[in-house]
Amino acid sequence: MKITGTFLDEISHDIPSANWGKEDWANEFKVMKSVGIDTVILIRSGYKDKITFNSKTLSKHQAMRPAYTDLVDLFLNEAEKNSMDFYFGMYDSGKYWHEGKHDKEIDLNLALAEEVMEKYGHRKAFKGWYLSHEFEEYNEGQLRLYEKLAVRLKEFNQSSIMMSPYIKGRLQFEKPITPMEHEKMWSQIFSSLEGKVDICAFQDGQVDFLELQAFMEINKKLADKYSITSWSNVETFERGMPINFLPINWNNLRYKLEVAEKVGVDKIITFEFSHFLSPHSVYPAAHNLFNRYKEWITK
Amino acid sequence: MKITGTFLDEISHDIPSANWGKEDWANEFKVMKSVGIDTVILIRSGYKDKITFNSKTLSKHQAMRPAYTDLVDLFLNEAEKNSMDFYFGMYDSGKYWHEGKHDKEIDLNLALAEEVMEKYGHRKAFKGWYLSHEFEEYNEGQLRLYEKLAVRLKEFNQSSIMMSPYIKGRLQFEKPITPMEHEKMWSQIFSSLEGKVDICAFQDGQVDFLELQAFMEINKKLADKYSITSWSNVETFERGMPINFLPINWNNLRYKLEVAEKVGVDKIITFEFSHFLSPHSVYPAAHNLFNRYKEWITK
Amino acid sequence: MKITGTFLDEISHDIPSANWGKEDWANEFKVMKSVGIDTVILIRSGYKDKITFNSKTLSKHQAMRPAYTDLVDLFLNEAEKNSMDFYFGMYDSGKYWHEGKHDKEIDLNLALAEEVMEKYGHRKAFKGWYLSHEFEEYNEGQLRLYEKLAVRLKEFNQSSIMMSPYIKGRLQFEKPITPMEHEKMWSQIFSSLEGKVDICAFQDGQVDFLELQAFMEINKKLADKYSITSWSNVETFERGMPINFLPINWNNLRYKLEVAEKVGVDKIITFEFSHFLSPHSVYPAAHNLFNRYKEWITK
Repeated sequence: MKITGTFLDEISHDIPSANWGKEDWANEFKVMKSVGIDTVILIRSGYKDKITFNSKTLSKHQAMRPAYTDLVDLFLNEAEKNSMDFYFGMYDSGKYWHEGKHDKEIDLNLALAEEVMEKYGHRKAFKGWYLSHEFEEYNEGQLRLYEKLAVRLKEFNQSSIMMSPYIKGRLQFEKPITPMEHEKMWSQIFSSLEGKVDICAFQDGQVDFLELQAFMEINKKLADKYSITSWSNVETFERGMPINFLPINWNNLRYKLEVAEKVGVDKIITFEFSHFLSPHSVYPAAHNLFNRYKEWITK
Repeated sequence: MKITGTFLDEISHDIPSANWGKEDWANEFKVMKSVGIDTVILIRSGYKDKITFNSKTLSKHQAMRPAYTDLVDLFLNEAEKNSMDFYFGMYDSGKYWHEGKHDKEIDLNLALAEEVMEKYGHRKAFKGWYLSHEFEEYNEGQLRLYEKLAVRLKEFNQSSIMMSPYIKGRLQFEKPITPMEHEKMWSQIFSSLEGKVDICAFQDGQVDFLELQAFMEINKKLADKYSITSWSNVETFERGMPINFLPINWNNLRYKLEVAEKVGVDKIITFEFSHFLSPHSVYPAAHNLFNRYKEWITK
Repeated sequence: MKITGTFLDEISHDIPSANWGKEDWANEFKVMKSVGIDTVILIRSGYKDKITFNSKTLSKHQAMRPAYTDLVDLFLNEAEKNSMDFYFGMYDSGKYWHEGKHDKEIDLNLALAEEVMEKYGHRKAFKGWYLSHEFEEYNEGQLRLYEKLAVRLKEFNQSSIMMSPYIKGRLQFEKPITPMEHEKMWSQIFSSLEGKVDICAFQDGQVDFLELQAFMEINKKLADKYSITSWSNVETFERGMPINFLPINWNNLRYKLEVAEKVGVDKIITFEFSHFLSPHSVYPAAHNLFNRYKEWITK
């Protein structure tokens, strides 16, 4: 089972920019296509004062730094040239939803969505929306944010609504969740999101490798129960090293890919191809990872 | 407005060495020249027990590790071959001036300056001195250090005295300074340095992007008032990422370059070309940044 | 005096994988050979649930992630093709010996050694065992671990037993040890290990550069006294930088190599060639370091 989707990590929280120009991105999309990627997901369209395109809505709300290149247009173009689906990631204020002001985050994003529909909604590659406000546990405001956005976004263009939450796992949290607690909590969350969110791609990097299958089986079972399509976000960066974040060890990636296949997810995506798995990556270890991955998928 | 000067970051506090040899440096200076760089500033000639050349003065003061290559001579040679101005950065003990013993730091540097004048003072590229003891707020000892060094260094060879302080900004300090406080404080500082320090190139990476123009306008106004030439040190590395420090996002660099131009500084320099903007950098993202920058300056 | 041995850092605690395949490793061993490396030391055969080969012994003990490539076999092959000696690094549970349960760590490793002897003991390159449980000060359990393993491992095949401890030095510890304390403590330790451990290669990165010679002279004197062969583990990565761990500055490496030669160690090894000194490294600064090193050894 191959990786067939990837996030596009512009705007980034924590991964340094490769500083690619249009031609570099064109080459990158070609390579993605060559190894079977048919889906790209913009991780977020904006974060605080950073934006991927010069949005009138966001600029009205607060001063934004200019986007000298319209990345949404650039990514849509490349997706279209390579027959890929594009998911648009929502704006993250970096504040309201952390301060309990979820309604402000909702309103801002609903207004943004109107502008996005008008500007890019007709584009052939525009396949869906990505709810970029990641979370790992039950929270009323957070759920309201997801429900309200999902319902409204779907009305626009009957497109797919996707999310990629994380697991409160041992590799990131001092008090990690048990599989049983996880099952109970996500059952509650999914019951709220049923019929609203179409696709859930859990991140797979927060739990111990040896616990991964147990957690992913729960995820798959719950998603099936609540009619949500299961994807897996098989992370291609290594966690738990002094340098955060660099390309993952191929042995670890293969292990996680095999777990995803065993569990029976519908699709494997990754965060993310261009820094961690691409032969064009600014990290040379990614070039080697790409070679190992290609050997494996062509075996 | 282009970047026409760069620091040379040997001896480094925090940036890993590229391990370039003489030929690598020769190629690097040629590239610098090709994009308009006419000024190079040695960030410091020594730090604790590390030195850029085997100084008798410093070795008398404390045991120093040998400098197997005379970097001052190497940089002067390359500057001369490429018709560049060279600024010599002073020695940083890493201790005295942090312990309030500024006079010891002064004496050591005055003695070093004698040796440097004798050894390199006649060199064609030797254009000035760089006061390498960076600071961000009023401090009597610090000012005495700057005044005493500036006055004496100028006597030697009527050369330029340069400084590159930082702003106590939001991106680095928990209790950041307001623009008004900054103006008041730097007015006091500049009034002490008037007629002594010739050039002030504030670092531009500690304040929010959206605050940058406000702070830089204050800097320019004050420098004009106290007859100090305004340069801007437009940093080419990214701040606030898990990996410190990697090449900046081109979008951010262009934004800061445009602010510097709007404010009307006399010259833009950077910390620093060779790790973060050079096509020879050990960080591949710098190669791409160089391409973006070249596209922009040749447009 | 050249570097003639290197660790192989798979399984790593803290250094990201280069993701090399068999061909990459073949090229790497050729380069090592070309600069005089005749000894390779597997840093550890396993760590927690990570292993370099699918060990029945370890899998019986706890669930292990699969090793998709048998790295021990791969390294032995390459060592044999290049006439090198191979040292096998023991398994590190990551827990028992930190919790005072040294006997459990011993039993596990003794059982593993039986399997290793059967599987790889006959291999031509198999020259010795490396005691991978690093330590820096006297500890009864730790010494029992070393003594028991050393005695039993030697019985197997009369091979060499090697260790590479660190010094409780200023660059890593808030309360660093003095040379006098260090001498007293390691005299006690070596007196326990005499006749059991054959080779001790102290790491050289934890003490100040200017203190290095004093500590290494003590190490050499003590090792001579207790009939242990002195090697030096001259680290090729830089310590004390914001990014841990990147290739060392050539000036620093040369300094440490010269100290090792002055002190008169029998052999210089390094942690480690492939990330920090190799022309194939994923860190470009290592390529330049290799060039500097080659210039120096061929002068």
